[in-house]
Amino acid sequence: MPEMPGSCTLITFLSDFGQNDGSVGVCQGVMHRIAPEARVIDIAHDLPPFQVIPAAYLLRIALPYFEIGIHIAVVDPGVGTKRRALALRTGDGRTLVGPDNGLLVPAALESGGVAKAVEINDSLYGIDQVSKTFHGRDIFCPVGAHLAEGKSLSDVGEPIDPAKLTDLSLPEPTISKESITAGALFSDRFGNVSLNLGPEHMSGAGFSPGSHVDVDIDGKVQPATWRVAFGDAKPGDLILFEDSFGTMALATNHGSARDALDIEPLCVIKLINPR
Amino acid sequence: MPEMPGSCTLITFLSDFGQNDGSVGVCQGVMHRIAPEARVIDIAHDLPPFQVIPAAYLLRIALPYFEIGIHIAVVDPGVGTKRRALALRTGDGRTLVGPDNGLLVPAALESGGVAKAVEINDSLYGIDQVSKTFHGRDIFCPVGAHLAEGKSLSDVGEPIDPAKLTDLSLPEPTISKESITAGALFSDRFGNVSLNLGPEHMSGAGFSPGSHVDVDIDGKVQPATWRVAFGDAKPGDLILFEDSFGTMALATNHGSARDALDIEPLCVIKLINPR
Amino acid sequence: MPEMPGSCTLITFLSDFGQNDGSVGVCQGVMHRIAPEARVIDIAHDLPPFQVIPAAYLLRIALPYFEIGIHIAVVDPGVGTKRRALALRTGDGRTLVGPDNGLLVPAALESGGVAKAVEINDSLYGIDQVSKTFHGRDIFCPVGAHLAEGKSLSDVGEPIDPAKLTDLSLPEPTISKESITAGALFSDRFGNVSLNLGPEHMSGAGFSPGSHVDVDIDGKVQPATWRVAFGDAKPGDLILFEDSFGTMALATNHGSARDALDIEPLCVIKLINPR
Repeated sequence: MPEMPGSCTLITFLSDFGQNDGSVGVCQGVMHRIAPEARVIDIAHDLPPFQVIPAAYLLRIALPYFEIGIHIAVVDPGVGTKRRALALRTGDGRTLVGPDNGLLVPAALESGGVAKAVEINDSLYGIDQVSKTFHGRDIFCPVGAHLAEGKSLSDVGEPIDPAKLTDLSLPEPTISKESITAGALFSDRFGNVSLNLGPEHMSGAGFSPGSHVDVDIDGKVQPATWRVAFGDAKPGDLILFEDSFGTMALATNHGSARDALDIEPLCVIKLINPR
Repeated sequence: MPEMPGSCTLITFLSDFGQNDGSVGVCQGVMHRIAPEARVIDIAHDLPPFQVIPAAYLLRIALPYFEIGIHIAVVDPGVGTKRRALALRTGDGRTLVGPDNGLLVPAALESGGVAKAVEINDSLYGIDQVSKTFHGRDIFCPVGAHLAEGKSLSDVGEPIDPAKLTDLSLPEPTISKESITAGALFSDRFGNVSLNLGPEHMSGAGFSPGSHVDVDIDGKVQPATWRVAFGDAKPGDLILFEDSFGTMALATNHGSARDALDIEPLCVIKLINPR
Repeated sequence: MPEMPGSCTLITFLSDFGQNDGSVGVCQGVMHRIAPEARVIDIAHDLPPFQVIPAAYLLRIALPYFEIGIHIAVVDPGVGTKRRALALRTGDGRTLVGPDNGLLVPAALESGGVAKAVEINDSLYGIDQVSKTFHGRDIFCPVGAHLAEGKSLSDVGEPIDPAKLTDLSLPEPTISKESITAGALFSDRFGNVSLNLGPEHMSGAGFSPGSHVDVDIDGKVQPATWRVAFGDAKPGDLILFEDSFGTMALATNHGSARDALDIEPLCVIKLINPR
């Protein structure tokens, strides 16, 4: 928890609520009533609906760029079922709030692990009515705002065993001497597709910067090159590159690899060494 | 009006300006110059263009989640015509600013009714030039910001009779013993479609939670079930549910009812009791 | 530079990063860590990707509505190449930060010209690592935030000759006695298309408010009328009007001219006088 909660506390907010229907605005209103002096920064809200893995990946790579604060994340296909509502403290002092569906764990592991976790207890923090479908508004944002105002984890829930959180690990790649079987984790605005690979995985299949790579998606194979910078490629070229978060990504230079190759979230992408 | 206007005043902002062309940013700049200390929260801007009813519905359901403040709303197909520009005070102290086309009235009625209204007079608050097409920037946002800074309603316009505001009532359902003829008011990011119905209307046609409901849109009939929670339904199921704002809504579980049933805003939806 | 940098400094932020992948959020986090008290207003982020001219046009027309501050703009197809990173001071005291690809110059010219410019030197302001693909996060936003905190231009880079900035002038129209050959600079949420024309250009080809205008795009000709207000036109009418920024624009009343006429950014549009 921030040492001096209150006026200067940062709240970050990530969800799949989109920007077109007022859900995010209403959540902002709820937080503002409870914590009027907190600074709220939206990380993103137009994430693929109901998909926990892309959101968990984004939360993990984004959080290191933010001051320590209260970090609310809501992608919650199980809303209204018995999945638990969580608030947790990481080893380096961040407070994460969201559903217990794996969304928070990868970010927490990057942030010193889960030092403490509680299952949020609705009755403790005084929300009159909790809907069955909008826990962002009714549980996660008010709890996050109360934590920003100085409430402790024990004020909002009962301790649970950090080892028993739902851990939706991001999928791991399979690496052989001739190829890597990877998965698409996330795509950005430009249609660049982040894979579950770092550059450290690439040498296992004999790839190095400059290598040719055959990209196999559902049996359709496209030639690509591992480039160090976009400036080295021609418009339209398919390239593999280390993106700005240290993740290997596919891109069509000045275009969209996601659209050109019709890549769905979590689809399997095989990188074959054509040598 | 807030009792202590100035530094801590909340301004909310709702429009159909979208997020992609800088219009909202320019409005924020205009408000910031006049009321640099006000806190501005965007409710939504990607509403269906030119459609007053969905925006009026959203303003009505969203406002109770916000602290009392200045609430600006601009969906204004009549911009540049003789429709009046309004600022009004509600019975419970909110200040609403926007065009006199019915947009503000449903929210005001939920907020204690219209206690006082003025027709905004451009010349009173010192905007040099008012364009014919962007009154959000030139009238509504500057007036809202001046009100946030402590100006009174009489400072920005001439009193008008609250009873003579354009009252674009949200459409009412027709209820018979076997069916309800309803209308689509709003759809959210997930494609859930809010109808002009509360659960209190449902019993009139013999529906109760768990009931089967035949959903007739333009003669195409689809079976649905009134569900209490999404968790009770299978992915792809068409369900009717009480949404988190107390409105009956159609949803395709883990999908989009709007897209699956091709529901346009304000389209007529008949709920038939198949018993 | 603002005279009293620090708590009340305004930072504006414009980019083509979109709103769906967290890039803007991460940039906000970076700025907040360096300048926690600055007020950040987003101008727009869903601009056409990689297109400098629409963004340069928007920055130019938007900036006069903002208080003098730090104005960051990032549309950067050359990221990772040798294009320079700039910070500049305008004649009337604004500070602009962005790539040296022409993006900043039209706005600077409207704001008193470029009084001073520096090429940003990464090593001066202490960013540990600069990626090859995300200079918004790694250079422009941190530098902008440091400037908001009171650093001077010389603190962040080496002086360069303002006359040698890349000057991607907005395209000029060609005017004859019977027609004007113009270009599409920008389209807004409603599909209104701003041309590189002011009303002062229109009389050259004999047009005045009320004139009929044949709009020729790629040889397809559509009749239009120069209207003073949308209220004068019928829904579906193609009109030419002076938009709220003083630019001539094409619109389909209550529709989208961009979609109806399939207008791409920068496409050539000929306005023919049918008399």
